[in-house]
Amino acid sequence: MENHFCYRLKKIDTTQQQLLWGETVFHNANGYIGVRGNFEEGYPHSLTSIRGQYINAFYDITDMKQAEALCGLIEEKQTMLNVADTQSVRIELGEESFSLFEGTVKAAKRWVDMKAGVTGRRVDWISPKGREFTFTFRRMTSFVRLPLFLQEITVASHNYEGPVRFLSGHKGEVRNFCDPSDPRVAGESPQYLFAKDKKQTGERTFIEAKTSRSGLRVVSGVGHRIPEGYHTQIRWQEREAQHVITGRISPGEEACLYKYSWFSDSVRTPAPEEAAEEGLRCVMEVPVKKLYEEQEQYLSGFWEDGLLEMEGDDDLNLAVHYNMYALLSSAGRDCYGNMAAKGLSGEGYEGHFFWDTEMYALPCFLMIQPQIARTLLSFRYETLEKARENAKKLGHQKGALYPWRTINGEECSGYFPSGTAAYHISGDVAYAVAAYYLATGDREFLNEKGAEMLMETARLWLDTGNFAGGKFQIQDVTGPDEYTCMVNNNYYTNALAKYNLEWAVKCAALLQEAGRWDALCEKICLTREEVERFGRAAACMYLPYDEALDINPQDDSFLQKKKWDFANTPKENYPLLLHYHPLALYRRQVCKQADTVLAHFILEDYQKLSTIRNSFLYYEGVTTHDSSLSTCVFCIMAAKLGMVEKAAEYFGESAKLDLFNTHKNTKDGIHTANMAGNYMAITYGFGGLRIKESGLYLSPCIPAKWKSYRFRFFWQKTQIEVTVDQKECSVRRLKGGPATVHLYGEEVLLMDCVRTRVKKEGDGNQDHEI
Amino acid sequence: MENHFCYRLKKIDTTQQQLLWGETVFHNANGYIGVRGNFEEGYPHSLTSIRGQYINAFYDITDMKQAEALCGLIEEKQTMLNVADTQSVRIELGEESFSLFEGTVKAAKRWVDMKAGVTGRRVDWISPKGREFTFTFRRMTSFVRLPLFLQEITVASHNYEGPVRFLSGHKGEVRNFCDPSDPRVAGESPQYLFAKDKKQTGERTFIEAKTSRSGLRVVSGVGHRIPEGYHTQIRWQEREAQHVITGRISPGEEACLYKYSWFSDSVRTPAPEEAAEEGLRCVMEVPVKKLYEEQEQYLSGFWEDGLLEMEGDDDLNLAVHYNMYALLSSAGRDCYGNMAAKGLSGEGYEGHFFWDTEMYALPCFLMIQPQIARTLLSFRYETLEKARENAKKLGHQKGALYPWRTINGEECSGYFPSGTAAYHISGDVAYAVAAYYLATGDREFLNEKGAEMLMETARLWLDTGNFAGGKFQIQDVTGPDEYTCMVNNNYYTNALAKYNLEWAVKCAALLQEAGRWDALCEKICLTREEVERFGRAAACMYLPYDEALDINPQDDSFLQKKKWDFANTPKENYPLLLHYHPLALYRRQVCKQADTVLAHFILEDYQKLSTIRNSFLYYEGVTTHDSSLSTCVFCIMAAKLGMVEKAAEYFGESAKLDLFNTHKNTKDGIHTANMAGNYMAITYGFGGLRIKESGLYLSPCIPAKWKSYRFRFFWQKTQIEVTVDQKECSVRRLKGGPATVHLYGEEVLLMDCVRTRVKKEGDGNQDHEI
Repeated sequence: MENHFCYRLKKIDTTQQQLLWGETVFHNANGYIGVRGNFEEGYPHSLTSIRGQYINAFYDITDMKQAEALCGLIEEKQTMLNVADTQSVRIELGEESFSLFEGTVKAAKRWVDMKAGVTGRRVDWISPKGREFTFTFRRMTSFVRLPLFLQEITVASHNYEGPVRFLSGHKGEVRNFCDPSDPRVAGESPQYLFAKDKKQTGERTFIEAKTSRSGLRVVSGVGHRIPEGYHTQIRWQEREAQHVITGRISPGEEACLYKYSWFSDSVRTPAPEEAAEEGLRCVMEVPVKKLYEEQEQYLSGFWEDGLLEMEGDDDLNLAVHYNMYALLSSAGRDCYGNMAAKGLSGEGYEGHFFWDTEMYALPCFLMIQPQIARTLLSFRYETLEKARENAKKLGHQKGALYPWRTINGEECSGYFPSGTAAYHISGDVAYAVAAYYLATGDREFLNEKGAEMLMETARLWLDTGNFAGGKFQIQDVTGPDEYTCMVNNNYYTNALAKYNLEWAVKCAALLQEAGRWDALCEKICLTREEVERFGRAAACMYLPYDEALDINPQDDSFLQKKKWDFANTPKENYPLLLHYHPLALYRRQVCKQADTVLAHFILEDYQKLSTIRNSFLYYEGVTTHDSSLSTCVFCIMAAKLGMVEKAAEYFGESAKLDLFNTHKNTKDGIHTANMAGNYMAITYGFGGLRIKESGLYLSPCIPAKWKSYRFRFFWQKTQIEVTVDQKECSVRRLKGGPATVHLYGEEVLLMDCVRTRVKKEGDGNQDHEI
Repeated sequence: MENHFCYRLKKIDTTQQQLLWGETVFHNANGYIGVRGNFEEGYPHSLTSIRGQYINAFYDITDMKQAEALCGLIEEKQTMLNVADTQSVRIELGEESFSLFEGTVKAAKRWVDMKAGVTGRRVDWISPKGREFTFTFRRMTSFVRLPLFLQEITVASHNYEGPVRFLSGHKGEVRNFCDPSDPRVAGESPQYLFAKDKKQTGERTFIEAKTSRSGLRVVSGVGHRIPEGYHTQIRWQEREAQHVITGRISPGEEACLYKYSWFSDSVRTPAPEEAAEEGLRCVMEVPVKKLYEEQEQYLSGFWEDGLLEMEGDDDLNLAVHYNMYALLSSAGRDCYGNMAAKGLSGEGYEGHFFWDTEMYALPCFLMIQPQIARTLLSFRYETLEKARENAKKLGHQKGALYPWRTINGEECSGYFPSGTAAYHISGDVAYAVAAYYLATGDREFLNEKGAEMLMETARLWLDTGNFAGGKFQIQDVTGPDEYTCMVNNNYYTNALAKYNLEWAVKCAALLQEAGRWDALCEKICLTREEVERFGRAAACMYLPYDEALDINPQDDSFLQKKKWDFANTPKENYPLLLHYHPLALYRRQVCKQADTVLAHFILEDYQKLSTIRNSFLYYEGVTTHDSSLSTCVFCIMAAKLGMVEKAAEYFGESAKLDLFNTHKNTKDGIHTANMAGNYMAITYGFGGLRIKESGLYLSPCIPAKWKSYRFRFFWQKTQIEVTVDQKECSVRRLKGGPATVHLYGEEVLLMDCVRTRVKKEGDGNQDHEI
């Protein structure tokens, strides 16, 4: 069991690519702060390192000029900032300094202990002068005390007698990473953050820094618990502090230093200076042991409620755990932030939030951490006003258009045809509101926040589409598949719009029931007639269907296009978007990722099974999976359609993306949506889990080479565990009241446990046949 | 008659807007060089002036970063450069200097004499000290000696006795205009041109300047013919020369200075230094009188062959002459250049060449200056290789995709959905090749250049489109109407592609006939089978048609969209593109300009008359004419459809665009396409002229308030004059052999003259009914 929760690197590979990968994979984050896994002691100048510490939703604004000016195109964007460098600690041992790139490394390993919530590094080292040491670094961003980043550094001397100096840095004026070898980027990253103030309280240092344009302020505080007999001297250079901690060590002795970094920011509090001072003071009074215990306790709850185990493929099992842990580390814990595409592990996509949150992360958190799901949705509620403004900018009279990519709620897409035009983002948010409600039954959230979001997004569809030929049609939008842009009647978008409109109507009834209808009507000038129009548009929503093929075409013109010439596309030309002009892609049948197939997953009752099956097979033939959001969806749908081994293949491909760096870009950060997709692949895919208005559905299958798997989740107030092996599937109630479950299409009352024969490859899944 | 060829401003308005407008309207150009009508003596610092001299196709390369990087997007563009300042001449009269902004202006006027080919300015001025003078400025860019810009400056003293100094500037290092009040532009224009070398030969100065990135060189030479008794001193400051010409003047005396500027550039000659020296030396040996005579003689031929007169509206008559003169001034005279959207009159659109050349200017030149038409087409032949490369960049295996905007043949579109995606540009070029051949019968051009262009553009369509449902369809292109982008089966594009493919097939037969087939096949690896495929695609070309409305929809989805809410669009929100996000436009039925209506004009035999009429009426209701290329086409089609008074309204609106500054942006340059459209409106519109494979068609009509109109044109080797008054239409053969003409649908043999009753409002035009 322990084994499942610890990912170890036996040997640290110090080549450039591996180091950058390691910085991401061994990062620490807790949804509020993220610290890349940089070496405390630094690197030789010849190596590139992305040294970064981030705060969820802490950003500056930067120019993004358009090549050709058109009305309303976005010309400035938000960028998540590197907020400070508090992780640096040089270790001097007499006239020598510790470095992995000098002397002899006898052994070195890194790990992330997902049970303890701590990352570690241990190095057995012989200095150029022959002095032998063991260094151990432990790092933790606390899930319980979000502003805390704790480092524990232990130096054990084997044969050295003499002075030890820890040079512990505290830098408040840092820049974002930039790659001088990329001609698109200026030689040096512009400076967004300026240290404005410094303060010292005893041996604790505080630096306040302010952004250049967004006007946000961050305060970092640094303090230490030093080894006995050591003393501290603090040197300030401009607005940068160095804590010099000096002592002596003898062979057989250990010196252990604790470094506390504490963050506070003006996004969340009007007085971050005081909050940081007070916070750091308090946390340093808590025994370190307690801090570690709290962390372990928090995670123990997470792993218990989120239990997920697979027997038969240890690597896969580990990868899935790592993914879950990384998700937990990435998701925002308050309504100011959200979950960036790269979490808090790197600067890829500039820390922007995408639909990844609603359509990938949220379905996971719903099941195991519904409170986090609620928090993520609250961010969308907080930014609803900006979504309304965004809709106005796009020429809409009413409604809310959520931005395709954002930090503060304003659109950051530089290329609107595959950015702003992805109107489905508003449908995704609405879908997530409904999904959250169905999974948790949280009426309060629906009344207070969800309803308003559902109504405003529903309004967007009414204002975007129009009735033509008796059908409600939606023109010029971009679906999830970015290899096709600004199309008419994108199946995914229309289906989601239909669902959004239907839920607006349902929600109106729920509000009425709760006596909350009038208040909302007054707040957003909503009328009963408008809701009726929602209903009519939903009922008449045009969902493209091709009778000859019995599939749903991705959009009105998809099937008219030539298929992409896969046979004559060299391997090195993938991903296609890096090698072909967008127009070359747009006018061919080729998909970057699941689009209609994703729609069939989330809204399976809109089509009969044969259409879903035929569509799956059709799109499988034209999808490159150039997006990391794709294979998990194909896995889920293959499982649904009884193609279990195919599902297993899709699953294997994506689960290890970051741990094995299969896309070669993990250095820029983890792929959170893909990670969440993996979790979904097990629960929604192999488990066949669906949460609908009509109840809970399970339809488990298992790949031939797996021995068994097991997962737990909450549904409403009940906690359920599903165990599946090659013969049997059992569904067990762990907590909460009895529940009705549709198991393989049959309604059963779950009192304690239900067992049944497991579905096998080719069995198909006929339960949704219309 | 004289009157028709001279446009006079009775009084010079020195307000900011009027000055900038005048700089454009009174510019001098000859297709090679263009000089804006700036005051020789300069302006007060408080006024903005766009001081510029341009050379057709002389450009530098500049960065155009994309907000979001996508494969193949253009990230650098060409910019037409301001090449020198040789027009400046300060006039010092003792301790005073002449300026329109000091002293008292008793009278001041400007004119363009279109018969003489000279612009002029005359000012009666009293200096602050009470000295009275008359200044006369004459300026000419020679149509006969293209590198020559000549200025004649006469100072007449009425009561002043004393010294006169002409400070005549020659500056080789100039910058393009930039507007510091426009936040999108840097405070100062970047420097593209660097003076590299200077030379003085006697009293002639030469400056060689080189561009920063394109590596082009330009040499300007300046010399003077000075008044008797005056002497010259030349002062150099760095690489800028000042010719100081000094003498004395007495009351009743005149001093007349001639300033010669001569240009040579490395686009056209490898040794521009020598060419400039030799050129300036020679031209200064020619008596000025002869230079003026040559100019007048050239224009006399132009006005004779291009005779066009209207009785009943002098303003309109003058405006049309001005437009013709400006077109003659704008069109390139060699294959290196072409015709910029703003001619050589300003820096709008950065001097780029668009489809304006083929679809607007060329149909005019074909009729009156076929040699210029041929030259314009030759530019497209010279850049055919770059069009092939452009097609490759867009992922095509074969074919030529002409750039949407360019100077050197490479694409300069920063926003590809309404730039590069306007594939019709290749069809426009092919159409122009066919039109040129039909109008001139020039087999040699077809064999040597035209055929290759026809084949390569035909190949593009084959590679772009595909057969679906038995029809050849073309996906994801943008038609002329930029309020709808990246659509499927744009009627204009498909119709033009069909015509292009048909002409490729016809051309193959013509080449075979001429024994030139094998050579072309070998040169571009063309096969008989490929030509057969051209034929099949043409025959099966899908042309969208809506049976219920009996119209051609602009594209597959146009009719599904909501109509634009014109009733609730405030007047100040036009042009819409400046006030609405592209997506808001794209998803509504709203057209910036003629699209299907233009297709019906150029390819009228593809549809029955009722469809053309219904389409005209339909699109009239959704077209804003926000493009200056639109109303002329609606005029032509209204005339064709018997709506003569409506045609007259469309005509009046656009003819005076630049002379009356109706779009308020003439300061940036003239609107050449609109000017050409006006000429077309008379000949193709009211005259009902069509040139088809089956011969020449005429079908004249006349608005009620016109007394008469008359125009001449060449068809093959015959010159024809058409005269139309309220009763009668006469068609007269002026030169060349007899010709068969379809007059109002009836075939007549034109020996000398044919007369007939003129068609009246509402008569319609049934001759093309299928």
